[in-house]
Amino acid sequence: MTDRGTPRHLPLGPGQEFDAIRELLAHWGNRAAGIGDDAAILHVPRGDALVVSVDTAIDEQHFRRDWLTAREIGYRAVTAALSDIAAMAARPLGTLVALALPNEQRTSLGDLADGVGDALDAAETGILGGNVSSGGQLSLTTTVLGTAFAPLRRDGLCPGDLLYVTGRLGGPGAAVAAWQRGSEPQPEHRVRFAHPTARLRPARWLADRGATAAIDISDGFAADAEHLALASGVGIDVDLALLPVLAGVADVLEAAASGEEYELLVGARVGLDTADFERTFDLPLTAVGRATVLDDGILFRRGNERVAKPSGYDHLSR
Amino acid sequence: MTDRGTPRHLPLGPGQEFDAIRELLAHWGNRAAGIGDDAAILHVPRGDALVVSVDTAIDEQHFRRDWLTAREIGYRAVTAALSDIAAMAARPLGTLVALALPNEQRTSLGDLADGVGDALDAAETGILGGNVSSGGQLSLTTTVLGTAFAPLRRDGLCPGDLLYVTGRLGGPGAAVAAWQRGSEPQPEHRVRFAHPTARLRPARWLADRGATAAIDISDGFAADAEHLALASGVGIDVDLALLPVLAGVADVLEAAASGEEYELLVGARVGLDTADFERTFDLPLTAVGRATVLDDGILFRRGNERVAKPSGYDHLSR
Repeated sequence: MTDRGTPRHLPLGPGQEFDAIRELLAHWGNRAAGIGDDAAILHVPRGDALVVSVDTAIDEQHFRRDWLTAREIGYRAVTAALSDIAAMAARPLGTLVALALPNEQRTSLGDLADGVGDALDAAETGILGGNVSSGGQLSLTTTVLGTAFAPLRRDGLCPGDLLYVTGRLGGPGAAVAAWQRGSEPQPEHRVRFAHPTARLRPARWLADRGATAAIDISDGFAADAEHLALASGVGIDVDLALLPVLAGVADVLEAAASGEEYELLVGARVGLDTADFERTFDLPLTAVGRATVLDDGILFRRGNERVAKPSGYDHLSR
Repeated sequence: MTDRGTPRHLPLGPGQEFDAIRELLAHWGNRAAGIGDDAAILHVPRGDALVVSVDTAIDEQHFRRDWLTAREIGYRAVTAALSDIAAMAARPLGTLVALALPNEQRTSLGDLADGVGDALDAAETGILGGNVSSGGQLSLTTTVLGTAFAPLRRDGLCPGDLLYVTGRLGGPGAAVAAWQRGSEPQPEHRVRFAHPTARLRPARWLADRGATAAIDISDGFAADAEHLALASGVGIDVDLALLPVLAGVADVLEAAASGEEYELLVGARVGLDTADFERTFDLPLTAVGRATVLDDGILFRRGNERVAKPSGYDHLSR
């Protein structure tokens, strides 16, 4: 998609910053073929809308370096950003990565780059541009561009629409809780935190079959269900007893509060073929409730028993 | 350009992060009308290419908080990012701003937002998305999107092309040098550091009149002239005695090394009407040399005397 042109020489000069860029490019290879000018040049397929989003992962705020390897940090940061355009049912056009790296962590640059590369490969996309600075704290800010003929938005729910969620929830929340207790998370929980998946293809499948609205679960299922309802100007009635929960997660309320899941919550006017979805993506798709009229408000139940909204995930600050 | 949709309610939940977003939106007003979904949706004019770039400004690395006000920090960060798409002769489509702000600097959020707003107003563009995190160090990462029918690239110089530079150089270098000596910079130098201008309209004027290549001067005139030559696979012959220098800058070699100027260096196959440019933009446009064949290499002269390349600006690390 990128206009790669023919840079006859890489226009990099001397200096530490250029050394870092050279090292990144060596790790990225063809995934960064568009880099080299003041800005990247690309073309949006005619008729498609452009969707664009930015996301930042900061050490001590979104992850801890004693929890994850550098490669996992790079992978996770870029995947979280890609998840925002998955929620729009868009196809990725490329990413831009701005990295701030303390001088004393300079040796982890190659591993971070490989993690970024893993995320790009998983999403079948590349790097359009970037920026490396030495900074006091490790951070990755990823901009993701995508295209879609009809992007799926947050504000498309109507009263009566069914609500579906992909995957099994609770892993990241259980992993963070274990680390914060000073113990090791269960491997299945750790991998859901360290190696999430941006649901790009599943989202396009859902959009193609009439999904009316979508959001990715970054603040927790309950919080993001409320965001979807508020954006659409509807109420919701969710039975948390239906929520698919990962093995080893103690309680469904914990799963409903678990953040940074990067699963999708979608609305649909007609019932979706969940069996076909599961066969296609080896991933559950589960009906968990309905949109209601605005005046009915936000209702979380457990069977017939009303429950308070499971409190949302505020990164590591809780 | 943004598809503003009809968010019936702002989909923001509780929590510190959402409070910060609300405060930013209050300062940005209509300039942030597209915000509210997982990703912004926009449309690229048919036939135009999309250009996109990212730039980061980090405290202690790109500026110091005792040099600039919070409003200037916000303005300068976004303007520096816009300058990269000015160098492509593109028209801005919008920006995304990711802000990391230490908790103890939380009170400066409104001033930072106003500075970002000043830069958007100057460029006649808006905010498409963003991200706020609390972090150990103040940083702003700005992604800029633009469109152009024929973006101006770095690799279009041919031997014989004339080289022109906009504006008068040396201000930012002189300001930083003064601060680093512990004295106050001259006001005219300080303003060139604190309040640069992205040369968006001048770049389009130049592209419309046949400019063959362009770069914005962020690493210093001499370093960026070399980048342009390397990207194009040509040599250059530059007479630094012709370089337009800001009043009070001691030496032309200092002006040639001064970074973060955000002026443009362009190539042109035929002579440009510099008087018309100056009348139109109240800004000098000065011929300073020529591209030569690759084997002639990089030549900096001062009249007839050859000089070593004035060393490039490596942010605050020099």
